[in-house]
Amino acid sequence: MSSSATRKRAAALGDTMLALGHDARAALASLAAADGDKRSEALKAAARQIRARSDDILAANAADIAAARERGTAGAMIDRLLLDPERVEAMAAGVETVSELADPVGRVLAEWDRPNGLTIQRVAVPLGVIGIIYESRPNVTADAAALCIKSGNAAILRGGSESVLSSRAIHACMQDGLVEAGIDPNAVQLVPTTDREAVGFLLSSMAGLVDVVVPRGGKSLVRRVQEEARVPVIGHLDGICHVYVHADANPDMARDIVLNAKLRRTGICGAAETVLIDAALAAQVIADIVAALADAGCEVRGDERIAAMASPVTAATEDDWSTEYLDAIVSMRVVDGVAAAVDHIRRYGSGHTESIVTDDAVAAREFLESVDSAIVMHNASTQFADGGEFGMGAEIGIATGRVHARGPVGAEQLTSYKYVVRGSGQTRP
Amino acid sequence: MSSSATRKRAAALGDTMLALGHDARAALASLAAADGDKRSEALKAAARQIRARSDDILAANAADIAAARERGTAGAMIDRLLLDPERVEAMAAGVETVSELADPVGRVLAEWDRPNGLTIQRVAVPLGVIGIIYESRPNVTADAAALCIKSGNAAILRGGSESVLSSRAIHACMQDGLVEAGIDPNAVQLVPTTDREAVGFLLSSMAGLVDVVVPRGGKSLVRRVQEEARVPVIGHLDGICHVYVHADANPDMARDIVLNAKLRRTGICGAAETVLIDAALAAQVIADIVAALADAGCEVRGDERIAAMASPVTAATEDDWSTEYLDAIVSMRVVDGVAAAVDHIRRYGSGHTESIVTDDAVAAREFLESVDSAIVMHNASTQFADGGEFGMGAEIGIATGRVHARGPVGAEQLTSYKYVVRGSGQTRP
Repeated sequence: MSSSATRKRAAALGDTMLALGHDARAALASLAAADGDKRSEALKAAARQIRARSDDILAANAADIAAARERGTAGAMIDRLLLDPERVEAMAAGVETVSELADPVGRVLAEWDRPNGLTIQRVAVPLGVIGIIYESRPNVTADAAALCIKSGNAAILRGGSESVLSSRAIHACMQDGLVEAGIDPNAVQLVPTTDREAVGFLLSSMAGLVDVVVPRGGKSLVRRVQEEARVPVIGHLDGICHVYVHADANPDMARDIVLNAKLRRTGICGAAETVLIDAALAAQVIADIVAALADAGCEVRGDERIAAMASPVTAATEDDWSTEYLDAIVSMRVVDGVAAAVDHIRRYGSGHTESIVTDDAVAAREFLESVDSAIVMHNASTQFADGGEFGMGAEIGIATGRVHARGPVGAEQLTSYKYVVRGSGQTRP
Repeated sequence: MSSSATRKRAAALGDTMLALGHDARAALASLAAADGDKRSEALKAAARQIRARSDDILAANAADIAAARERGTAGAMIDRLLLDPERVEAMAAGVETVSELADPVGRVLAEWDRPNGLTIQRVAVPLGVIGIIYESRPNVTADAAALCIKSGNAAILRGGSESVLSSRAIHACMQDGLVEAGIDPNAVQLVPTTDREAVGFLLSSMAGLVDVVVPRGGKSLVRRVQEEARVPVIGHLDGICHVYVHADANPDMARDIVLNAKLRRTGICGAAETVLIDAALAAQVIADIVAALADAGCEVRGDERIAAMASPVTAATEDDWSTEYLDAIVSMRVVDGVAAAVDHIRRYGSGHTESIVTDDAVAAREFLESVDSAIVMHNASTQFADGGEFGMGAEIGIATGRVHARGPVGAEQLTSYKYVVRGSGQTRP
């Protein structure tokens, strides 16, 4: 393309994005005027639309899938992209679940009086306009839109180019739900172009229009966001999750948790990638755990002590300890005590989710206090790291940053607050 | 300087800053091992040190002031920079007040059970390493260090070059307090160089070492932070605060609040810059309010309706509505009703603090709900926008961003949280 054509295209993209931003800000007033019941009504109507137009959504998805196959897209990606009648129904049910949550807006988070007679309340308010950048899963369109509407925020959604037709079909249902409830449909907008530059523009040139960006995707997206963002980000990194089988673990429980944490679904960020086994229990449990993993089709990459006690085990390299496989592969290491397990996690973990299996309350407490991850668990599978499993109805992702929200990001986490101060004429001495 | 010398200097600066970052991260373990009592003890010891070494601090400050006078620094800046025995005592007392607050770390913020028997707790944890960039007030060194220690965070402080000797003297007291309590003194470090590039390095090249940056200063600092930051920021913008005198305001209360909000101290971000007077009450109160302001030495810049009803009034220009004077100047405009006042604030305000004066509860409610600022007030002076006045002991600043903290940022606001999940062997179906 000529440089003049490139400039024209960039200018047109900028105009499109700025228009989305201005329309989203205008929609905030409509969202603010709608009370919690109206916002719930919009979600119920959107869920009805998703069910009623299931065939349209599936047809759009079939076209996305056909295009992806034509490009030679890998099977795991096709599975993430694929919708079927059950998945569409689950999407509608998810939107309904969010509609039934308590209104996160207007909650009085704290309230106190001052000696001078002022009363102070901290009250939850929407964040404002939220930009959400995600990849191939089309259901994120429904989940993210539902959580934003529930929490009174306007959403600018930027889905993956692979799922563009599916996302458009779902987005139309969400907007129709808003219209049915009398709310400005610009409260949920979908970036109309698949141009990669749109992401850059959203990250860097929309300060004042977009209040926060939520990236949900793999390492390359996260890296790009860190480099380019000029607006606040609710950050997500990869999930290198650990299960630590302590000396006093119940061997059956340990095996069941390791298998579930690794293999229930290997492609989610809460899937375990590394299993740490305490030296004191290793001889007793390793052969059994490795055999169970192998039977279930999982490759085990172990350190020398693991390899000496079980098979089949391939040799782990240093890189394995910091690799998020998202696949039926697990790294496994013998550690000497809680402190060594915590050290390994501090060095190689990503601050997402770690679990200890033990019957020893003191060891559990030490682990839960010392491991500085968004989610720490005792005697539970890391696969529970999920907004739905936490009772939040849905999630927009699992935040591993420390600012604003950490862990599953649901409707409550998409609010800010303001202070309301009531007096009777007080002036400050 | 030659380009080779420039490169050498930049490399040396980078090494210094990275060493600060690594030392701060190492100190986090020492802070985590110290419980709330130990951290309070460190603050009480630091307060004792500040009192005991008041003469050293005042001598350092006198040298800063002399250098500033030599450079021809303006009077308002000298006042911000100046310490006297009372201000040193107030600083020590502030550190003590923070020491006596409840421990913000370990608070159980929420707790619930799931149908599958998992129990979930959301527990407050420190943010980590906090970079604080501030300007000339030396007391920020004590306030910021105290709030970080209280909340278990390590601090990297970068004060203004004008107050460097004062800040070093205060910083030494804070570190000695940490040592007395057995905590790693690197928990509070002061950037040793006044090189402006140090701020750039802190903002852009310390991801992974610094968890969040808190800028506290004027517009040029805030602009720089927005442009350069590659780490999360708890943002502060300017304070263009409004007082709206409603149709049903008590005229005496209105005058008292306007005078206090504008003039008690003109240099703080919670000082009012614009007064909106309802048309329905204007004829009755404007002459009195303008006269009272003029008597107190305040210049009034009014719109045509104000100028027609009172004197002395100079003509306000469009720029006046978005100017933070931080001086004895106020802009004043007649508005027609609550909605018009809210519109003016939406258009020109900075989202900091706004107050309505009225005896009408319905109008108050409309204003408090519609104005989307960090702090909204009814019948109180905007000068109460302050962490101390809110009962937080001290503040690191007033956040006007919407992400993480909003309003006064105290010790509680310097925490993140993690989820602690306890089970009895649950695996996810």
